Amino acid sequence: MRREITGFSNPLLKQVRALREKKHRKRAGLFLAEGLRIMTEAREAGFLPEMLFVTLGRDDHDLISALENDVLTAGGDVISVSAEIMSKLSGKDNAQAIVGIYRDHGVQLTDIDRTSAPIWLVAQAMRDPGNLGTMLRTGDAVGAGGLILIDDCTDPFSVEAVRASMGAVFTQAIVQCRWDEFTAWLRSGDGQLVGTSLQTDTDYQDCRYTAPCFILTGNEAQGLPEAYEAECDALVKMPMYGKADSLNAAIATAVMAYEVRGQMRRG
Amino acid sequence: MRREITGFSNPLLKQVRALREKKHRKRAGLFLAEGLRIMTEAREAGFLPEMLFVTLGRDDHDLISALENDVLTAGGDVISVSAEIMSKLSGKDNAQAIVGIYRDHGVQLTDIDRTSAPIWLVAQAMRDPGNLGTMLRTGDAVGAGGLILIDDCTDPFSVEAVRASMGAVFTQAIVQCRWDEFTAWLRSGDGQLVGTSLQTDTDYQDCRYTAPCFILTGNEAQGLPEAYEAECDALVKMPMYGKADSLNAAIATAVMAYEVRGQMRRG
Repeated sequence: MRREITGFSNPLLKQVRALREKKHRKRAGLFLAEGLRIMTEAREAGFLPEMLFVTLGRDDHDLISALENDVLTAGGDVISVSAEIMSKLSGKDNAQAIVGIYRDHGVQLTDIDRTSAPIWLVAQAMRDPGNLGTMLRTGDAVGAGGLILIDDCTDPFSVEAVRASMGAVFTQAIVQCRWDEFTAWLRSGDGQLVGTSLQTDTDYQDCRYTAPCFILTGNEAQGLPEAYEAECDALVKMPMYGKADSLNAAIATAVMAYEVRGQMRRG
Repeated sequence: MRREITGFSNPLLKQVRALREKKHRKRAGLFLAEGLRIMTEAREAGFLPEMLFVTLGRDDHDLISALENDVLTAGGDVISVSAEIMSKLSGKDNAQAIVGIYRDHGVQLTDIDRTSAPIWLVAQAMRDPGNLGTMLRTGDAVGAGGLILIDDCTDPFSVEAVRASMGAVFTQAIVQCRWDEFTAWLRSGDGQLVGTSLQTDTDYQDCRYTAPCFILTGNEAQGLPEAYEAECDALVKMPMYGKADSLNAAIATAVMAYEVRGQMRRG
């Protein structure tokens, strides 16, 4: 329903702000997304916020109105707040700012149909929310089915990861699991596991990729653990022509994913 | 020479902290880099800090000692500070933290020998320091000669950009100039200008690239201005298989750069 909050001391505002911290997101099973572009992607992917915060007295905007109507129809709340409160919620001085509270929607490995996409991304101990969100965005672009998070990855539902995903947090399946769970599931069916690594001489363009191809990227600083590399069907590396010995993890994943996709379309 | 600073009120510390702001960096012609990995890259590329801050009573570390000796030999200062002061300077609680103050080293277009590298990256109005730093890192990896910054880009010498560059801020030539200056220089010699754009049907793998190839990437939100696209010798796009209509700017640049480099090595 439609509501209005005008007082800073309203306890709901405190709960919403608390969603910037992981422990509060876990406890509530909710996360926060900001901005019309991301929330429109969400809507098109079938996700509506349980609560939508908009600014009192803002100019009319068709897409915001459409979003409001959908939220109300689905039984959610549209909550109008003053510009001051919105700037506290969104961290932005922008009367068009909107904030949505969504139920988190991680899935289990057993929910995944691996044949539904030619590529899946797998990240191990990815620590940077910008990298993780960017991997989701890239996954969407290359037609990946989802992102499988192994070990202690940064939270895919953090504000920073959601922002970097540009909405792909709603279009990509997101699984969080242990390595042994992942490998047991992977080996119970078809699937090529390809790791990017510095410990190989195989050029990424000399490997033949087959669907479903699981592209595994390790932690930003350490790369993949040795035992994980040993499990891979192929280890490949991108040529490095300069002084540096590695690429940013999200960049390496994207270059790999476009190579895999490029090979597949050439047949 | 070797010095020690134990008081928080020392004016030098205030000047160093001020280098986190662009206006102070511009005025001083200095910037700040953190961490042994980046500062070792800098050293190997021939750049030493004018001032090197280390923590009093830290454990011995060969690479830090080597860096200290080089700084002293070059006439710079090695300044020991307490762990508390270091944590203020570096924002990190880590006794191995080191901070270096470097002279900024942007160059002019006329300093560039375009034939010295097969690829050059060009960014227009790039706003995100992480993206810009990542472009520098990718540029190093693909053997680009440098990064040319057009219009109002974020400062390549900010702490965030330097960190994301992982040292490539020291190995890539960095030019800041206006669009008309760039095109006048570009057209005075050989060079293929390739823009990534949503306004084209040309697939990035269907275009033939020739060295020196200038890969032009536009602002994160707006993409390239129309007039800039019109100047390009080729406009290309990456295929998008999902719901999203674009890639992160640094990702798009990297996928392009590896395609260009891949074509060149296949001959």
